[in-house]
Amino acid sequence: MNSYKHVVQYYETDKMGVTHHSNYIRWMEESRVDYLKQLGWDYVKLESLGVVSPVVEASCKYKNSTTFADEIEIVVSVSEFKGVKLVLHYEMKKADGTLAAEADSVHCFLDTTGRPIRLAKELPGFYEAIMNELN
Amino acid sequence: MNSYKHVVQYYETDKMGVTHHSNYIRWMEESRVDYLKQLGWDYVKLESLGVVSPVVEASCKYKNSTTFADEIEIVVSVSEFKGVKLVLHYEMKKADGTLAAEADSVHCFLDTTGRPIRLAKELPGFYEAIMNELN
Amino acid sequence: MNSYKHVVQYYETDKMGVTHHSNYIRWMEESRVDYLKQLGWDYVKLESLGVVSPVVEASCKYKNSTTFADEIEIVVSVSEFKGVKLVLHYEMKKADGTLAAEADSVHCFLDTTGRPIRLAKELPGFYEAIMNELN
Amino acid sequence: MNSYKHVVQYYETDKMGVTHHSNYIRWMEESRVDYLKQLGWDYVKLESLGVVSPVVEASCKYKNSTTFADEIEIVVSVSEFKGVKLVLHYEMKKADGTLAAEADSVHCFLDTTGRPIRLAKELPGFYEAIMNELN
Repeated sequence: MNSYKHVVQYYETDKMGVTHHSNYIRWMEESRVDYLKQLGWDYVKLESLGVVSPVVEASCKYKNSTTFADEIEIVVSVSEFKGVKLVLHYEMKKADGTLAAEADSVHCFLDTTGRPIRLAKELPGFYEAIMNELN
Repeated sequence: MNSYKHVVQYYETDKMGVTHHSNYIRWMEESRVDYLKQLGWDYVKLESLGVVSPVVEASCKYKNSTTFADEIEIVVSVSEFKGVKLVLHYEMKKADGTLAAEADSVHCFLDTTGRPIRLAKELPGFYEAIMNELN
Repeated sequence: MNSYKHVVQYYETDKMGVTHHSNYIRWMEESRVDYLKQLGWDYVKLESLGVVSPVVEASCKYKNSTTFADEIEIVVSVSEFKGVKLVLHYEMKKADGTLAAEADSVHCFLDTTGRPIRLAKELPGFYEAIMNELN
Repeated sequence: MNSYKHVVQYYETDKMGVTHHSNYIRWMEESRVDYLKQLGWDYVKLESLGVVSPVVEASCKYKNSTTFADEIEIVVSVSEFKGVKLVLHYEMKKADGTLAAEADSVHCFLDTTGRPIRLAKELPGFYEAIMNELN
C-alpha cells in the first residue's frame, strides 16, 4: 500500500501561522478514502452496494505543527477489526521525517436503513481485504 | 427584516492573520438561509416541497479585512427577480460600520428531477414573498 | 456559565445528508472561545498577553447524527488542570435533548517563543479562573 | 504550464449530494498557488520577499455540478495585468471534458506595511514572468 500525500493549502492555515488542527481530521478522511481505493473497495463502490460507513470516533494527537506548502505523508493502517467495528490508525509525517500527528478513527458499517452490516457474511470480499491488512 | 450577525471564528482565519476570503462565500449562505427563514420560506421548507435552489453564480468584493472575533453584520437584499433567476445582494459591515465586503449570488429553482420551476405558477406564495422584497 | 449554541450550516453537511464529522472539532473551538470569554479570559486577551494555546489533542465520539438547521447546545467543562495541561470536555446536545457528541481537547500554554508558561506563576488570574471551574 | 488537478473530497460535498459551491473558491487558490510555483514565484518566496497578495475580488460561475471523487482539471490564465492589479481566470473541467465552472480572481500586491508595490520597479522578475503569461 502506498502512503498518501497531502500538500497543506493556504486556506488550511490559521492566524497562528500554522495548519488549523481541524484539518487533520479531514486529511484522515482523504487518506482513508485513498487507502480503501487501493484495497479495491473505494467509497463510491461501497455506497453503490448500499453500504454507508459513518465515523463513530475520531482522535488526533498533534506532535509538531505544519504550515502552508508542507507536504504531509500519511500512512494508514488497520489497528483493530472484528467484523463490525473498524479502527484505523494514521501516522502523519513531514518531508523531513518529523512526526506531525498520530490519529485514530473508528468506523461501523450500516445498510441504507441504518442497520449494522455483518461484513463477514454480507460483504465477504471487503471483510477479507480488511482482515488481510490487520496482521 | 433583521440583519444577520456572524462572529469570525479562529478556524476562519489564515496565516496572513485575517479571515480567509473563501469564508465570505459561506457567510453569504448563512445570511441567505436566515433571510429566507425570516421571509417564511426557509430551506428546510423549500426542500420538503421538493425545491432545490443551486447557486449559479457567486461573487465577492473584499473591501476591508476582518479577523478573529470580529462581529460582521450582513444585510441581504433582492436585487433582481423575474420568476426564474434570483439575484441577492449582500453588504457586510464590521462593528465600527466599516464596509468589509459586498457580494452577490445568483440562484435558480429546480424540482428534484432538475427541471426549472416557474415559481409564479408552482410556488406563488414564495414568488410573492420575494417580489415584495424587490420593490 | 452559559452553554454555547451552534446552528448547523448547509455547508457543514455532506452527501450522506448529515453534518460532516470534522465540523464538531470546529464547534469545540467555537464553544471553547465562548467559554474562555465568559471566564473573562478570551483568546484576544490571551494573545495580547503573549500567550498562545495550541491544541495538543482532540477527540470526539459521535453519538447521534445532526443535520442542516439543527440547533446544537454545547456545554464545556474543565475535566483536568494541573497548571500546565488543560483538558476540556464538551457535551453536545440536539434541541430534543438527544446527545449528539461527546468530545475532549487537551491544551498547553506557550509564550511567543514556544516556551511553556507556568500559569500559576505567570498568569495567576487565569490560573485561578480555570481552577475554580475544575471541581 | 501544466493544469492543476483537484480530486473532490467527501468533506467538500453537501446534503444536495454535490460539491458545496464555496469549495471552488478554495480550488481557485490551490490552482493559483500551483500556477505561481510553476512560474518560479511561489507564495512562500513572495512572502519571504515581504510581498503579500490579498484577494480583492473573487467570482465563480457554476456550470455543471461535481461530486465526491471527481477529478477536476483547472487551467489558470492571466487575463489582465497592468503592474498593480492582476486578474486571473480559471477554467474547471471534469474528467469527461464537461465544464464545471469558470471563475476569476483579482489581486493586488502589498508590502508588509500594507503599501501597494509597483511590481515593474520593485519585483521586475515577477513582473516579467506575469507579463509573459499575458500574451
